[in-house]
Amino acid sequence: MWKPDRSSNEPLYQQIADDIERRISYGEFPPGSLLPSERKLADQLEVNRSTVVLAYAELRALGIIESRTGSGTRVSKYKWGATPKHTPNWHRYVEGGSFLPNLTFLRRIREALQKDKSLIDFASGELGADISPVKEINTLIDENHYTEYLGYDDPQGFVPLREALVSYLSQYRGIQTTESSILITSGSQQSLYLITQCLLTPGDAVAIEDPSYCYSLPMFQSAGLRLFRLPVDQQGVRPEDVRTLYKKHRIKMVFINPNYQNPTGALLDAERRIELLNVASELGLPIVEDDPFSLTSYDGTPPLPLKSIDSIGSVLYIGSFSKIAASGLRVGWMVAPHSVVERLADARQQMDFGLSVVPQKVAAQFFKSPYIQSHLDRLRMHLLYKRDLLIEALRNELPGLVSFSIPQGGLHLWCKIIPEVNDSKLLEEAIRNGVIFVPGSVYGSDSGYVRFTFARPMADEIVPGVSKFASSLRSVLA
Amino acid sequence: MWKPDRSSNEPLYQQIADDIERRISYGEFPPGSLLPSERKLADQLEVNRSTVVLAYAELRALGIIESRTGSGTRVSKYKWGATPKHTPNWHRYVEGGSFLPNLTFLRRIREALQKDKSLIDFASGELGADISPVKEINTLIDENHYTEYLGYDDPQGFVPLREALVSYLSQYRGIQTTESSILITSGSQQSLYLITQCLLTPGDAVAIEDPSYCYSLPMFQSAGLRLFRLPVDQQGVRPEDVRTLYKKHRIKMVFINPNYQNPTGALLDAERRIELLNVASELGLPIVEDDPFSLTSYDGTPPLPLKSIDSIGSVLYIGSFSKIAASGLRVGWMVAPHSVVERLADARQQMDFGLSVVPQKVAAQFFKSPYIQSHLDRLRMHLLYKRDLLIEALRNELPGLVSFSIPQGGLHLWCKIIPEVNDSKLLEEAIRNGVIFVPGSVYGSDSGYVRFTFARPMADEIVPGVSKFASSLRSVLA
Repeated sequence: MWKPDRSSNEPLYQQIADDIERRISYGEFPPGSLLPSERKLADQLEVNRSTVVLAYAELRALGIIESRTGSGTRVSKYKWGATPKHTPNWHRYVEGGSFLPNLTFLRRIREALQKDKSLIDFASGELGADISPVKEINTLIDENHYTEYLGYDDPQGFVPLREALVSYLSQYRGIQTTESSILITSGSQQSLYLITQCLLTPGDAVAIEDPSYCYSLPMFQSAGLRLFRLPVDQQGVRPEDVRTLYKKHRIKMVFINPNYQNPTGALLDAERRIELLNVASELGLPIVEDDPFSLTSYDGTPPLPLKSIDSIGSVLYIGSFSKIAASGLRVGWMVAPHSVVERLADARQQMDFGLSVVPQKVAAQFFKSPYIQSHLDRLRMHLLYKRDLLIEALRNELPGLVSFSIPQGGLHLWCKIIPEVNDSKLLEEAIRNGVIFVPGSVYGSDSGYVRFTFARPMADEIVPGVSKFASSLRSVLA
Repeated sequence: MWKPDRSSNEPLYQQIADDIERRISYGEFPPGSLLPSERKLADQLEVNRSTVVLAYAELRALGIIESRTGSGTRVSKYKWGATPKHTPNWHRYVEGGSFLPNLTFLRRIREALQKDKSLIDFASGELGADISPVKEINTLIDENHYTEYLGYDDPQGFVPLREALVSYLSQYRGIQTTESSILITSGSQQSLYLITQCLLTPGDAVAIEDPSYCYSLPMFQSAGLRLFRLPVDQQGVRPEDVRTLYKKHRIKMVFINPNYQNPTGALLDAERRIELLNVASELGLPIVEDDPFSLTSYDGTPPLPLKSIDSIGSVLYIGSFSKIAASGLRVGWMVAPHSVVERLADARQQMDFGLSVVPQKVAAQFFKSPYIQSHLDRLRMHLLYKRDLLIEALRNELPGLVSFSIPQGGLHLWCKIIPEVNDSKLLEEAIRNGVIFVPGSVYGSDSGYVRFTFARPMADEIVPGVSKFASSLRSVLA
């Protein structure tokens, strides 16, 4: 983003006024549109509010903008010859639209992370630079020559990647499949989006875990689905609850995250897995299994997915490159009956005309390379180390104030704040103190829970991050 | 796809039977699901139908599959112990879903192209390998080191690419903008999808060109929009028609493709452009301008987009890397008021959690490299050459049977078949003869039009392709 040049002889307020005039003339702020408040702009440009006040005064004097108390500062319509012409009422268009905006908390977190790069980030659900296979991926890109023609890709995804996944899934996840049963997606998010858009209709009832990252995805509401809760305990969801929800609400699909569940870290109990599949087959109910974390199992023995013991094809299996390697590559996959794969591939063609070949090629090479096993071993050890740093810091800094169960895999720690606390007050105070996390209410839980992603910050940020969090909590409780 | 091994001692039918049993056991074909017809499977595996008949007989004997006359061949439920267990009725799920499937013609074309790689392809709307900057892109990938961490990208897209686009758009398209007004998408398709999902609501009326590639996108119907037609003549759409549609149906948005329109190749007349913007501003009506082809202008003087003369911000501008460089990279962009960019970026986060950084980085480098100008010059010359090859061949092969106007830019020739002809008969006959195209009815026109994409086939395929097309047409007319 543009910032005024402090070394210039031109006064800051003048530089700011010129920049705003330029943006208006480019159509970034059409006539009649609202400009940022003086405080917000001062914040963005890192100048005193009084400087922005001056810049706005300058523009008002020129008739370029106009301020009315209460309604803020707007681009003047007259100056820009917009009468009798009318700029489209973009506000109305933006407010409309069938697709729901993201949750306020998530927008706030994104905005804070974009603004202040120095924040210690316990919020982003991804691997940090220290444990992502950056070197390996670069080596693969360097060693490889993309000599082939880059035309539109196969709607189901790049064939060599699907072939590489057939052996990867068999070797690492106990899933026997064929390349024609695999759909490459840009990640678990796209897999879920395609399922909610193409296999379900508005008004359908579905069961999701409570708490669950699904609550952080307005896509479920955007698709007009009715959501019913499957409470998650230490051993995951209870299969009986699925039967009950089916009887009560005729749920049409079950979404679960059985291995190191996001956010709780719970591992679905072995007997419950079998029982869950029995209930599903008894009711003819599809299960969507999202399995991003299992290979992070700290003891090196990853739990096998439901899909590996699904004898009759009840399970749609979702996997991803993001949580074990690189979220920025945007590569995920789904294993499903061929008719489902075809339907979803066809719909995806219409939404984005398919995926870029380059990242798929990199992922295919990674799976075929010797790097994968050594990377996974290294990843597990680092995650365990970071987890323990976080746990120790929480115990030292907040004895008696927090409680949590210790995850055996995954990127997150799910932490209960024992005294009553207001999520948004705590978040704002933490941001002020230089640390950020995701409040549990984003995942549909009550106020007073925190998801710490220990995978994202560098190891040496964890202890300072927790003390910043601790002082934020204490000051909110005080 | 798997094919039987003709060198093996094991009889073909046995290999096929084993493969089908394997796929069934993997869940690709769940119990009760329909298997491909004997003819279709024989086709796919390139064996005689009698071989497949034998393979199916073998599996029937083992009770693995069952055939009932009329209802085809299905996977047996008993054999697979699926009773009293129930596999989800995937068929019902696949048939349901709010998102509409692709048009039959397009699915047929895709299927034919996947099956027979030797087809001469006048159907795929993209550049062929001979005119795509494959070498340049590979050089950029090789020269560059992706040393940075691959985390989730900025929701609006990779900042260096947006910065590169600011100068590209100013230098090549006469559009002045800032990186904060740009949304990077995976291509024009995703841009349109985001607009229809986020800025419009079911029941809204919109105006699209007739004929138009928009008719090839069920996304418009999936979004529940009511489509009204703006007939396209030699000079493009008539601004008066927009006013009429507004009065009649209160259209909320206009979608146009003013430069070398797809499929007609029409170039919107200069005076009509100004009039169109006047009508839009008079009615406060947003115009979505898709501008993929303008830089292909054969005379080297690309028409400027509406956006470059849009003084009040009525135009949402859509651009893409696909039609001028590489469709397989999946990089596109939108220029819009900031509030629109923010809304669409937010929604896109929920659909696919953003784009891969790698292709965006390649595109940014391409725009900043010296390659772009020389590539565009070369591209124009090759397209002109291919266009002329196509025109000459059509005139030689089908005198008096076809008529068309000569495009001055773009990848397509829009051709009317003078005698009455059935689109699907012609398409099937052409596929049998080794050539493929898109029937005009896909774009909402009457039967008897053909879109030839001369950019896609190699130059030396064009003349043989046309004679295959000609003999197909003659035999259908006969």
